[in-house]
Amino acid sequence: MSRFFTDRFASLTPYTPGEQPQERQYVKLNTNESPYPPSPGVLRAVGQEAGRLQLYSDPESKLLTAAIAGHYGVKASEVLVGNGSDELLNFAFMAFCDEEHPALFADITYGFYPVFAELNRVPYVEVPLRGDFTLSKDDYGQLNGTVFLANPNAPTGIALSSAEIEAMLCSRPDRLHVIDEAYVDFGAESVLPLIKRFDNLLVIQTFSKSRSMAGARLGFAVGCEGLIRDLNTLKYSTNPYNVNRMTSAAGVAAIAENDYYRENAARIIENRNWTREQLMNLGFEVTDSRSNFLFARTDRVSGNELYLRLKERGVLVRHFHKDRIEDYVRITIGSRDQMERLIAEIRTIFDAA
Amino acid sequence: MSRFFTDRFASLTPYTPGEQPQERQYVKLNTNESPYPPSPGVLRAVGQEAGRLQLYSDPESKLLTAAIAGHYGVKASEVLVGNGSDELLNFAFMAFCDEEHPALFADITYGFYPVFAELNRVPYVEVPLRGDFTLSKDDYGQLNGTVFLANPNAPTGIALSSAEIEAMLCSRPDRLHVIDEAYVDFGAESVLPLIKRFDNLLVIQTFSKSRSMAGARLGFAVGCEGLIRDLNTLKYSTNPYNVNRMTSAAGVAAIAENDYYRENAARIIENRNWTREQLMNLGFEVTDSRSNFLFARTDRVSGNELYLRLKERGVLVRHFHKDRIEDYVRITIGSRDQMERLIAEIRTIFDAA
Repeated sequence: MSRFFTDRFASLTPYTPGEQPQERQYVKLNTNESPYPPSPGVLRAVGQEAGRLQLYSDPESKLLTAAIAGHYGVKASEVLVGNGSDELLNFAFMAFCDEEHPALFADITYGFYPVFAELNRVPYVEVPLRGDFTLSKDDYGQLNGTVFLANPNAPTGIALSSAEIEAMLCSRPDRLHVIDEAYVDFGAESVLPLIKRFDNLLVIQTFSKSRSMAGARLGFAVGCEGLIRDLNTLKYSTNPYNVNRMTSAAGVAAIAENDYYRENAARIIENRNWTREQLMNLGFEVTDSRSNFLFARTDRVSGNELYLRLKERGVLVRHFHKDRIEDYVRITIGSRDQMERLIAEIRTIFDAA
Repeated sequence: MSRFFTDRFASLTPYTPGEQPQERQYVKLNTNESPYPPSPGVLRAVGQEAGRLQLYSDPESKLLTAAIAGHYGVKASEVLVGNGSDELLNFAFMAFCDEEHPALFADITYGFYPVFAELNRVPYVEVPLRGDFTLSKDDYGQLNGTVFLANPNAPTGIALSSAEIEAMLCSRPDRLHVIDEAYVDFGAESVLPLIKRFDNLLVIQTFSKSRSMAGARLGFAVGCEGLIRDLNTLKYSTNPYNVNRMTSAAGVAAIAENDYYRENAARIIENRNWTREQLMNLGFEVTDSRSNFLFARTDRVSGNELYLRLKERGVLVRHFHKDRIEDYVRITIGSRDQMERLIAEIRTIFDAA
């Protein structure tokens, strides 16, 4: 820390992203990336845009916003794009939480939520998931503040139905609900269409997972015009040109080639089902994931040890040093080859024990 | 505003970026972009990187950080890259200003500084430039807080010498100085080498101007390790993957092809000198700009009117509705053809009057 750092942030503990090792080639199943490259139109669009980099990107990202709005059947004024969904989540914590409106989220969920709360110095309440890691809307019934709910949840992969979230929106019209649907395309129900009927709903999605664009940084928020206007106030006060030209063009192309990504998502779901079955045959407990990862534990080896042994053997998964989930590893679903390799390595580790 | 927007930001006035009209082709001299496209290596690097977008970017941006550090002769741990320099300036306001350390900056300077201060709810003092728009370091002598100094300044283009800034650093070792060198490559002196001797200096630069990458969003901060660590604490608490893969690869390539950009900067300086002379021949007062823009006024037509008339005629310059500079327009230096067109249009406007 320098002698000039403000006391406000002196005790801030930043988020720890998953390892991105540069020195060795791993079967990389640790940061929920897609095993499939972007579609051909994305490559073309990026190549074309590169020649115009001397010009600022459109601060309104009009073409991209229109493409997303068109695809999801909402108005452009109901959409805001961001430099990854993390940027938009941070804006939501800034815009919609304060001393009187604490952030409300699960004790086991995306690890960035408490960091955003600390950064913005807003109080937060961690609401425990049930023993089986399911989230019960009843546990939020009496709570005041702004709900942040990852659906499907991370790192468990467990999803609420659209009807359950709708019931939350109905029962507490005075409370804002930010639904983080980063993984929704892998078999969960999106509540995005509900923004037409509920002004207490903000949906945040990303191009990082099902659209193979983690490295391009593109997320979007969808909600009623008032909510989007609030987020825009913050965007134009931090970084008006937040989405660069290449990413913007890539996003438009990805929307146009939606079938490619839907097929990839279907393949990932298939690989997930296969992997889950294999793991259960090996004696693992595995949550019912609707995402592009599995969350699994076994009595035969601790979560940390499994992570370390797999890493030695060239397969990277993610382990969290955190209460209640210490025993688990989170395994991103890759290609079928990658998942076969994972299962083979686990067998070898078990055989050696 | 939605009913959920926090009171904290209710009165926030966001920054207004320059117009980016999509509907008509202008001779675009309003947002200080380079008239020259990125170098061939940048196009190649972007094309190659597009095929790997499914993978997150390196949160440490190691290759890019090393390239910048190597080019400027500093350590990688003394450099932080950002999604445009605006992101880094915002981090600096967050990290280094608070109730006891107000932000100190000129009354006429980059219009985003007061927005960053308001956003982060830190006090600020606007120190008037002298009558001729020069900044005197003596006006800052007694002031406590964190200095933000654009050098060359915007929108005037006037620069302090490296020696003058060094004198400020020497006289107030207890005070941090953030020097925003967005335009430094067009003929001003950079204080970047001074970071080795002064831990109260943070230099912020951008690839948007002299490196033709405004649309890619890339800025960097250079300072002692402690300062960079502080900024990293904020980066990892807002957006760990802040720089996308394509921009990162483009940045590495741009550093490697530095000669191309140096030649372009020399050409822009030449065009600036030519344009300044033409404007002065037409009776304009023009500041002594060391940037890629000119700041000019004439008795014959008001700043706003000149802006409007030029826009009608297809040439876009920038006018600020702001005390002391109401009479002026800021004119980005483009190619020689563009500048000839500008001068011709001004003649036509004058002839018609």
